[in-house]
Amino acid sequence: MLKTVGYAAQTAQTPLAPFHFERRAPTASDVQIEILYCGVCHSDLHTARNEWRSTVYPCVPGHEIVGRVTHLGKDVQTFKVGDMVGVGCMVDACQACASCAEGLEQYCEEGFVGTYNGRDQHMGGVTYGGYAGAIVVHEKFVLRVPDKLDPAAVAPLLCAGITTYSPLRHWKVGPGHKVGIVGLGGLGHMGVKIAHAMGAHVVLFTSSANKADDAFRLGAKEVVIWKNAEQMAAHISSFDFILNTVAAPHNLDIFLNVLKRDGAMTLLGVPSDPHPALTVSHLIMKRRSLCGSLIGGISETQDMLDFCAAHNIAADIELIAIQNINAAYERMLKGDVKYRFVIDMASLI
Amino acid sequence: MLKTVGYAAQTAQTPLAPFHFERRAPTASDVQIEILYCGVCHSDLHTARNEWRSTVYPCVPGHEIVGRVTHLGKDVQTFKVGDMVGVGCMVDACQACASCAEGLEQYCEEGFVGTYNGRDQHMGGVTYGGYAGAIVVHEKFVLRVPDKLDPAAVAPLLCAGITTYSPLRHWKVGPGHKVGIVGLGGLGHMGVKIAHAMGAHVVLFTSSANKADDAFRLGAKEVVIWKNAEQMAAHISSFDFILNTVAAPHNLDIFLNVLKRDGAMTLLGVPSDPHPALTVSHLIMKRRSLCGSLIGGISETQDMLDFCAAHNIAADIELIAIQNINAAYERMLKGDVKYRFVIDMASLI
Repeated sequence: MLKTVGYAAQTAQTPLAPFHFERRAPTASDVQIEILYCGVCHSDLHTARNEWRSTVYPCVPGHEIVGRVTHLGKDVQTFKVGDMVGVGCMVDACQACASCAEGLEQYCEEGFVGTYNGRDQHMGGVTYGGYAGAIVVHEKFVLRVPDKLDPAAVAPLLCAGITTYSPLRHWKVGPGHKVGIVGLGGLGHMGVKIAHAMGAHVVLFTSSANKADDAFRLGAKEVVIWKNAEQMAAHISSFDFILNTVAAPHNLDIFLNVLKRDGAMTLLGVPSDPHPALTVSHLIMKRRSLCGSLIGGISETQDMLDFCAAHNIAADIELIAIQNINAAYERMLKGDVKYRFVIDMASLI
Repeated sequence: MLKTVGYAAQTAQTPLAPFHFERRAPTASDVQIEILYCGVCHSDLHTARNEWRSTVYPCVPGHEIVGRVTHLGKDVQTFKVGDMVGVGCMVDACQACASCAEGLEQYCEEGFVGTYNGRDQHMGGVTYGGYAGAIVVHEKFVLRVPDKLDPAAVAPLLCAGITTYSPLRHWKVGPGHKVGIVGLGGLGHMGVKIAHAMGAHVVLFTSSANKADDAFRLGAKEVVIWKNAEQMAAHISSFDFILNTVAAPHNLDIFLNVLKRDGAMTLLGVPSDPHPALTVSHLIMKRRSLCGSLIGGISETQDMLDFCAAHNIAADIELIAIQNINAAYERMLKGDVKYRFVIDMASLI
């Protein structure tokens, strides 16, 4: 067993605080990692506070992990000690179903094992995430972090990056396409960067005019205030694809209406209450689609990291000490982050 | 000008009754047709009664037309006098936009001209449909009716047939696919026949257990009562594609939930009030799509007719005299039709 320390919520009401626990001793296929950085995803907050009513306590959040390999199981050949590696939202899957066979472990028919609050197949109980000093993960779920990128800024790519990259690839976004990104938060800012790097003409839909400068800097060519009906009308039936990162309930019709014939809008966020009912004729009259997408597969995550390295893309981050995680949660709730907090695990000592 | 007689609604409240009017004299590109049969679509009733609030009176409904060529414009080479031909939901389109260029006139960016209640580009006012003795149509919008099929039973293919064939083709339904058809009415019964002929394993979703025998006869391999949660649960995540023909507001979630990963459900009906809001996680967790589809293009309609001839498929119809059209509307409202009324225009004299 490997002793480590992390930050855990002990109940839905208590702030995260130091928590000593053990990881499994690496098996033959495992990689042991010293965690250097961990991104702070909105899901961490939802889970720590049991907002999805499925949290098992204590809960150590964190699924945007970057660190160095410190030990290898005897059968692991893909990595060596000292390598900079990443771990995202998944640490296991059945590896036998059709989705796993296609490299789409996020859709594993048995359900993938989440990096935290998943059912731990080795230790029993639930998995503990990346707000910690070390982690032990099956080599299949470990990613190679390209040397070229700042490892702290890579951490958010393991969730926010792949969650936007995967649908942009799946719906074949590329040069000549007009692509909308709805919302400029952790996911949205990666969506803008990646869609731009893929060669698309990127339009940011936002409710905050003051995000325009950032959007242009990140790669958007146009910014549309979606609560302004006149601005929306100017774009009617013109988008090939829209990636909608906003989880708060909102009017989907206004976005469906700006899709071209055969265009698709893909939702990434699960709203707490349903979005208002959509107008079916917006789908029928132009053969449009409303879709959803979940994270991305493991080999696709490696593709995404390599793509980001080739295009010199990483997240815009604010580095924090782990002692400030509770304050960071409060700032996230106010949208006061550009665009992802990353915990510097050196602060953990 | 060509004098003819038809049945028209003079107001939203009055029954359809004989109406004498004129068609344009055929231009060089026109085909003049003696109408033999006209299918009765639910849209006819909606329009006659101004339920979509856009009807211009008098209104002559009918867009499932089969008849014989009686006269040709001088430039028409595709048809000859005496040919059995069909006309569906469209009689004109801009022929210049990207959708028209791709043979998708139903998505014409200027808006196609409906066979009735469309803006008549030749005579002014609105177009008059197929509840009449004759019609004059641009050759581009005239279909060739295969000799092999009963012309009365072909009439409904021009709307109900193409509206189900087009999405089944677009979403690439074929052998090895498990395909659901929701609803066994005019559209649904064609959906079952066509999906079966395409080689799919067809499952009918219905609320009426007494439709099972018909469904099996038409080509379904399974029948599921969709209000029975246990029956639905047995099919979770198993469908490649679902064609949903039901316009009445209903729960979409239960159908999304039986789609496989990457499966799509396509809606054909526009509900009077919105469907209940859908659960976004049903889209996200399996990368499913909710889509819409409208009729089909002209060359695709010819493909559909040829496909139906090759597979010996046409609609199940009840032939009526035009004097019974108002009674037929009342029976349609009660769902008392298997599965399409077709007017025998010989009754018009």
